[in-house]
Parts: sequence; structure tokens; C-alpha cells
Amino acid sequence: MKEFFKVKTIDQVLEYRTQFVPLETEEVPLGNSMGRILAEDIHSDIDLPDFTRSIMDGFAVRGASTFGAGEGNPAYLAVKGSVAMGEIPNLSVGPGEAVRISTGGMLPEGADSVIMVEHTEAIDETTIEVYRSVAPGQNMVAVGEDIKKGEAILIGGQVIRPQEAGLLAALGKQAVRVRKKPVVGIISTGDEVVPVDKVPGPGQIRDVNTHTLLNQVLELGASAIPFGIVGDDYDALLAKSTEALDRCDMVLVSGGSSVGVRDFTIDVISAMEDSDILFHGISISPGKPTILARVQNKQFWGLPGHVVSAMVVFARIVKPFIEHISGISGRAPKKIKFTATLSRNVASAQGRVDFVRIRLIQKNDTTWAEPILGKSGLISTMVKADGLIEIGMNTEGLDKGTEVEVILL
Amino acid sequence: MKEFFKVKTIDQVLEYRTQFVPLETEEVPLGNSMGRILAEDIHSDIDLPDFTRSIMDGFAVRGASTFGAGEGNPAYLAVKGSVAMGEIPNLSVGPGEAVRISTGGMLPEGADSVIMVEHTEAIDETTIEVYRSVAPGQNMVAVGEDIKKGEAILIGGQVIRPQEAGLLAALGKQAVRVRKKPVVGIISTGDEVVPVDKVPGPGQIRDVNTHTLLNQVLELGASAIPFGIVGDDYDALLAKSTEALDRCDMVLVSGGSSVGVRDFTIDVISAMEDSDILFHGISISPGKPTILARVQNKQFWGLPGHVVSAMVVFARIVKPFIEHISGISGRAPKKIKFTATLSRNVASAQGRVDFVRIRLIQKNDTTWAEPILGKSGLISTMVKADGLIEIGMNTEGLDKGTEVEVILL
Repeated sequence: MKEFFKVKTIDQVLEYRTQFVPLETEEVPLGNSMGRILAEDIHSDIDLPDFTRSIMDGFAVRGASTFGAGEGNPAYLAVKGSVAMGEIPNLSVGPGEAVRISTGGMLPEGADSVIMVEHTEAIDETTIEVYRSVAPGQNMVAVGEDIKKGEAILIGGQVIRPQEAGLLAALGKQAVRVRKKPVVGIISTGDEVVPVDKVPGPGQIRDVNTHTLLNQVLELGASAIPFGIVGDDYDALLAKSTEALDRCDMVLVSGGSSVGVRDFTIDVISAMEDSDILFHGISISPGKPTILARVQNKQFWGLPGHVVSAMVVFARIVKPFIEHISGISGRAPKKIKFTATLSRNVASAQGRVDFVRIRLIQKNDTTWAEPILGKSGLISTMVKADGLIEIGMNTEGLDKGTEVEVILL
Repeated sequence: MKEFFKVKTIDQVLEYRTQFVPLETEEVPLGNSMGRILAEDIHSDIDLPDFTRSIMDGFAVRGASTFGAGEGNPAYLAVKGSVAMGEIPNLSVGPGEAVRISTGGMLPEGADSVIMVEHTEAIDETTIEVYRSVAPGQNMVAVGEDIKKGEAILIGGQVIRPQEAGLLAALGKQAVRVRKKPVVGIISTGDEVVPVDKVPGPGQIRDVNTHTLLNQVLELGASAIPFGIVGDDYDALLAKSTEALDRCDMVLVSGGSSVGVRDFTIDVISAMEDSDILFHGISISPGKPTILARVQNKQFWGLPGHVVSAMVVFARIVKPFIEHISGISGRAPKKIKFTATLSRNVASAQGRVDFVRIRLIQKNDTTWAEPILGKSGLISTMVKADGLIEIGMNTEGLDKGTEVEVILL
């Protein structure tokens, strides 16, 4: 049963994300949380800090004791002792008094600021000269100045970066609830495709798509399981697809999605229980013959066989679907636009979005995007490329000097 | 033994990278090579493809047989059979003849191009109408068009991205020689610091730097070993530092690097065998009291204790040192400049480089960098931040509207 292409636009295709629900959650130790997607909002149950901390090495004082002090007119303060780190100071600071304190130390009673050691000189064991004045509140962090008790500080859907891990540490969260990582199954198809460890015979080529797609999946922080190569055989593809779907959250089959003599993907999808083909064909180049089906509520993708086409479809189309089931939302990942200046005119067909591979060149304070030409079967063009630019449906091309948004590869 | 700061500029500091040699190499399976740094140049020992491949589903023909064909004036060709995938075709194509071929199939003898199936119509089992002409060489990839035998295609020092892994797969490289991952030991210091699983007493805080630094290391693709917290104790710090140095390629100690009452880092470094302090102090803010020593030819870093300061120093200073010993060179990682427009005036002190935390805001096609103010001990400011901007030594600040380069966090 061949279906004719009912080609969709990129925006129409991306709307199908809502047909899939984000993955379950799991708890991971804080030390393994890097890059994971937070699955819950985090409120602080403490003030941070919960005591008034010095942020300088120096002397805890009353600011008023230093008012008017300067290079030619130092203030003299009596040193009463030192604050021990990590303890409640057992002394207090009155007018004209100072207590030695280190960065991170707790301000003693009576002190409202810290004078930096660099702005003092010791006269003897118990007296310092002070050459600057400090205002109350200076060189210290007040209770709750970092985080206030009860404050909503992290939101479910955020990516955990080093600083979010640090914040969770500060709050004493030893474990954190995150979304499970999507597990993506990868199948290559084609009678002409042989594994990397085989020497291809005449007319054969090694399996490239498994390696490019697997690593594109890993790059997103998801897990990937390669299921090897299936020849142009309906039964074998059905069996392998069923196995992959069983073990994974989504499946990518590359090759066999064009209207060709070997087009089994559609038939295999239709044969699987609880399956629904969402679209077949996207108005992009390369990458038009892409299929997405919902099979048992999981994504089942038919990607083009040409390596560049499959990589482009992954970067622009599949990636947002993976992010969706990863539960990413809110401000992260930020949609930050990286732009460059087109180094030459590029022609494009109307009625479809063209993706052009580009190399970035930094010259005279300008970042140039230089188009790389070559057929979409040539992996070497992707190796030369730093990114992709997108030429809209309703344009016949872009002129040299145009500011273009770059999808970094 | 206290040393006075001999403050260096960022450029002076980065020159010390050459005092350290890149790590040894190791061989990893292709499937585990993602993100690793290639340690050797790769030349292709084959032509890719090594046979003339069709890149369309259609018919292998002699282009000349289609010359002049059009919608109103089709050419008629005799279909001689089909190319089986992955095999040498057992038939040839003469003038006026066509052979069915699929994407990836090997062109039969005599054929010089492929007519797409969409541009043909079957009249009967052995005859097709052709509605377009094809030029010789069209819709096929010639021998060596992707990669030529002997071509230098990858260079030692490149990062392996998905496409490089794909290329290595195409060449049959089951294993690849890469640089070993740097192993970075992390030590937190301070009597007031307690582990995440402890409830801090009065005047105590939980260990944040271990978590931020550990994840910054992981983000670079290096390995990290946390060595926990050492109190303000010379013997304990010396013992822990020696152990960490023994097990790791470099060590980061945070806290205790300022000129303070607890400044043991310098003393500990001096006490270690074969040690040389390269600098103490960088003309940046935050992050000035940073130390780098060469101990037994490894990097031993003393980082500031304030969490923001330590993260800034890591992102701007330590990272290039890790990249250096990782063996990264050549075009990757590309120094791509990401810029944004400053949303308000920012003041800065002369004589040092100021790093300002910023939030990125996309508005009206402009990416704005909005400064986040707050002391360098506040982790919350890093959680709000998307990046850092750098204000040069010889400026008193930047005006609203200035185009600034952003270090993404």
C-alpha cells in the first residue's frame, strides 16, 4: 500500500509533538544530575545564608566607628579577638571595637559591616588603624540575601546546569526528581548496507546513519540503542521494529522512507498494533521523505537514507520532539539566536524550506556563513560544516550580506 | 609564608598553558568516540563511494537518450530489468535503454545518469515514457566524489561530532585513537563548610563549590573526582592535595586562596615535591585571588571560595587549560563569537577586567544582555544568569546599546 506524500510544513509537523506525553520521572543522586531535566518545582525551606556572613577577610565593626576615616586621618579600633570559622562568635562588637573575621565567618553581635584587611594596619596586638570608612551592610551578606525561605527558585522543566546543581547542594538536596532520559532505538535499512566491521563488496556501503544518528541522540543527553541493519525485507523490518519499539521510547528507522521499490516502512508501521501515521513528507530539502507515526503512543520515525538528509531532519525536526518528551519547558533551553552574515548569494526553490550547510568564518569582527555545496549523500560536506541555515518557503534565495540564523552542528 | 599578589592579566595567565603537555592517547571503540578529541590525522584508504551510486529512485540511462524530452514530447525507453541493491548489475544500458534502479544502487555499465521515477510513466512492463531530460552525471554520485582515496579528511585535535563519527564509520574505523580525558580532582576547603547531607550548624554552610566545579568539569567532557571538604588545617590539606594529585591530571582547590588568616594553599603547594607557583592573582573581578602552580608537571589550582568567583575563573581561565591538555587544536572548538546588545549602562573599574553576569532576553529580533547585579557569593545570581560579559581593563564601563560578546553559561 503506497501512500502519496501529503507534505506538511515544519510548523505543522512540530504541532504533532503534543500527541506525545513527557516521560515518567525518576530520582537521581545530586552528583548525577548534570544536564537532566528537573521534574518538580523547588522551593527553599531555608534562608540562604541563614546567618550574616562576611565576604571579606578583615574586621567586623560597627560602620559608625569608621565614619570619617581616611588615609590622612585613620580611625583607631580596639581588636577584641577573632571569629572562629563555622561557629557562633563568643564576643560582641561595640563602638570603637573590631573583631578579626575571615571570609565566610559569622558576624558577631553588634557588628554591622566588615572593613577589609587591606584597609587597615596593625599598630600592636590589640589596636588597628583604619584608612577607609565602611557603611553598615558593606562586605557582608545578610540573612536570606541569596535565597529567601519559601522562595520558588527552580521550576520543573529546567535543565540542571552546574549552578543549579550548586543551588540544590546549598539547600541540602541529596537527590533530585528528574525526567527519565528518552531511550532512542536506531535501525538502518537497505540491502546494500553493511556494518562498519565488514569490507563492502561491489555496490555495498558501510552503515553511516547508525553512527551519525546515535551520536546526535547522545549529544542531546538521551540514550541510544543501535539495532543494526535490516535488509530490504518486510518481515525482518517488522520484527526488528517491534523489538526496538518494545525496548525504547522512540524509534528512528533510516532509509526506506522514499516512494521507491523498497518502501516497506509505511507497510511495517501499518502492520503494527495501535499505529497511526501522522505525516509522510515535509516541505523541506533535504529531508522531504520523512515519516512520523504514533505507535503504541511512541514516536516511530522513518528518516531519509541519505546521511545529510537524516542529520538535517534530526537537528531541525526530531530534536524538538525528543526535547518535548524529555519534559523541557520554560526558559531552558533558551531559544538563543546565533546569527552570521551570508558570504555569497544562495539560490533556493520556492514552496519548500531549504537547509544549506555552512562553514563559519571569523573575519574583521564579522562572523561569515559560507555555504558548502554538495549532494545530500556526501558525509564529507557535513564534516566541513559548522551549521545549517534555513531559507524560507516563499523566497527564491538569499543575498550576500544577509544576516542569517545558524543552527550549530 | 605569605606572598604578595603579583597580579597577571588574562593573556599573561593563558600563556602558562604551554607549560603543560597534552595527555597521552588511547584507543576507544567508534561507538564511544562522541565528543572525544582525535589524536591522529585520518587519511582515507578508499574512494568514497567506490562505485557510481544512484541518489534517486528511477532509471539508469544514457543521458543522451533523454535529450529533448519534455511534457509534450516524451522519450520512450526500453526497460531491460532492475539493479539489485548491493550487487554488481548483470546488465548494461545502451542507447534508448533504461534499467530500474533504487537510491544507493550501482549504475550499470553504459549508464551515465539516472532519471527520477517521478519524471517517467510506465507504458507497459518493458517501456517507459520520459518527460524530462537528464544530463550525464545527474542524480548519481561518482567514485570518490565524497572522499578521495588518500585524502586527509580529519586532523588530530578535532572534536569528534556525529558527522565525524559517521565519516569514520564510512571508512571502516572500528576504533579511533583519541586523547585521554583529563581527570580533575576537586577539593573544597574551610572550617565552616559541611557536606550536602549535613544540616549546617550556626555559622556553617553546605559545600556548593564541589558541585558547581564538578559539573563544569563534566560539561567539558572531562572526568571529575570529588575529594570532599578539608578544614583549615595545613596537614589535612597537604595530605588530601597529595592524594588528589596522585590520582588526577589536575587539581582544583577552592577557598583559602586569598591573603587571609587561613591561607594554607600557598604553603601546601610549596611543601609538595617538584612544585612551582606560576602566578598568584589575576587582574579580574570576581576571581582575583587565583593561584596556579605546576606540581609534578600537573596543574594545581587555588580558586576563590566565593561560588560565583570560582565559576567565572573556571569558565574563562581554567577551561582553556583543560582544553589544552585535552589536545584540542585546529579548527575545533571554533571560537565562535556569540553577541548580544547591552540593555543598560554598566560601570566598571579600570585596571582590571570585570565579568558581569547577564540574562539574555529576545525582544523585537534583538538579543539583549541584561546585567544581573549581586555579590559574588550569591549562587542565585548564577542561576538567573545565561552568560557572562567581559568589560576590558581600560574602560570605565559600557553604554547601553553596546554590542557585547557573551560567554554562555
